[in-house]
Amino acid sequence: MSEQDRNTRHKKAMEKLKSHVDAKVAAADEERGLMLVFTGNGKGKTTAAWGTVTRALGYGYRVGVVQFIKGLWECGERDRLEADDNLEVAIMATGFTWDTQNRESDTQACREVWQEASRMLADPEVYLVVLDEITYMLKFGYLDIDTVRTAIANRPAEQTVIITGRNAHRELVAMADTVTEMQEVKHGFTNGLKARRGIDF
Amino acid sequence: MSEQDRNTRHKKAMEKLKSHVDAKVAAADEERGLMLVFTGNGKGKTTAAWGTVTRALGYGYRVGVVQFIKGLWECGERDRLEADDNLEVAIMATGFTWDTQNRESDTQACREVWQEASRMLADPEVYLVVLDEITYMLKFGYLDIDTVRTAIANRPAEQTVIITGRNAHRELVAMADTVTEMQEVKHGFTNGLKARRGIDF
Repeated sequence: MSEQDRNTRHKKAMEKLKSHVDAKVAAADEERGLMLVFTGNGKGKTTAAWGTVTRALGYGYRVGVVQFIKGLWECGERDRLEADDNLEVAIMATGFTWDTQNRESDTQACREVWQEASRMLADPEVYLVVLDEITYMLKFGYLDIDTVRTAIANRPAEQTVIITGRNAHRELVAMADTVTEMQEVKHGFTNGLKARRGIDF
Repeated sequence: MSEQDRNTRHKKAMEKLKSHVDAKVAAADEERGLMLVFTGNGKGKTTAAWGTVTRALGYGYRVGVVQFIKGLWECGERDRLEADDNLEVAIMATGFTWDTQNRESDTQACREVWQEASRMLADPEVYLVVLDEITYMLKFGYLDIDTVRTAIANRPAEQTVIITGRNAHRELVAMADTVTEMQEVKHGFTNGLKARRGIDF
């Protein structure tokens, strides 16, 4: 095929794609806050949530992040953004459940930080709320699904909420607008590569 | 089961989990720059890349981002971070291929921005390079896989590179350390929800 034929074929394919894209954009006319779920066993769930936080802050929106589990970790993105007056971060300060090994104190810590989450989910000034790794709190029974579902369902119409963590509860998946399953194809860590500062944490 | 039994069972499970986690951490003793691929048809690929950018900047590392395709879009995260002296963003300024519909000018624009990418991939001062949506450049034949593979393979040992976009070339997947397939379970946009400022772009 000649270069010119290739160019012509490309133009036709792109015209077709454009009409397809335009039709989809025109059909998407409902505008409100979204509920997003980033789940699955692969790398990128919390990272994508922080990417969205950066994005929302970039427009000057107010953002609330609640970190279940990883709160005691070094966290480059939190450090980078925390000077921003529009960002509030609440941390469950116990660390990983496999370090504390104490169900009672974990439950208590979880419920305290959930109070912060509830407040954010009820505040119409907060444009985006991230409930980072909350799925494990449901799995361990530290929080019950009805409490979480009700708070999310009753949030202000313009507010977006992001849930991250493996094994998202089926009721959260059902009520979400957008769900991405981050599947691990491979992971350097499993093959002997050390978690890297500024990249993995 | 009594509360106390539950607590005891929890402690045992967490002890077991901790020894598992500790063993994995101990086994992961190789330290160098990583190659990450975020691919698949779901939401979160570019977002996870920008989350990693924020993270790396949080530690004061230098970061280079090359945006293929989406360069003309409003981009909250770029706006949020671009004041950072450690961030350099190179943009393929043509916009979506379905808008330009011109294979020759797209190819030209792509090769120009690839020069920026090559420079970053050769610079040991750059800790993280993001090649955002480069997969489409390979698919359309604007770039060839050998050029890209060689530049990545020869990058400085401490440099991490992130590739995003659907249908990552199998050779890139093969050479990567960590690959996540972001699978769309559902997407609000497909169900009539408008892309949202500060969240989707």
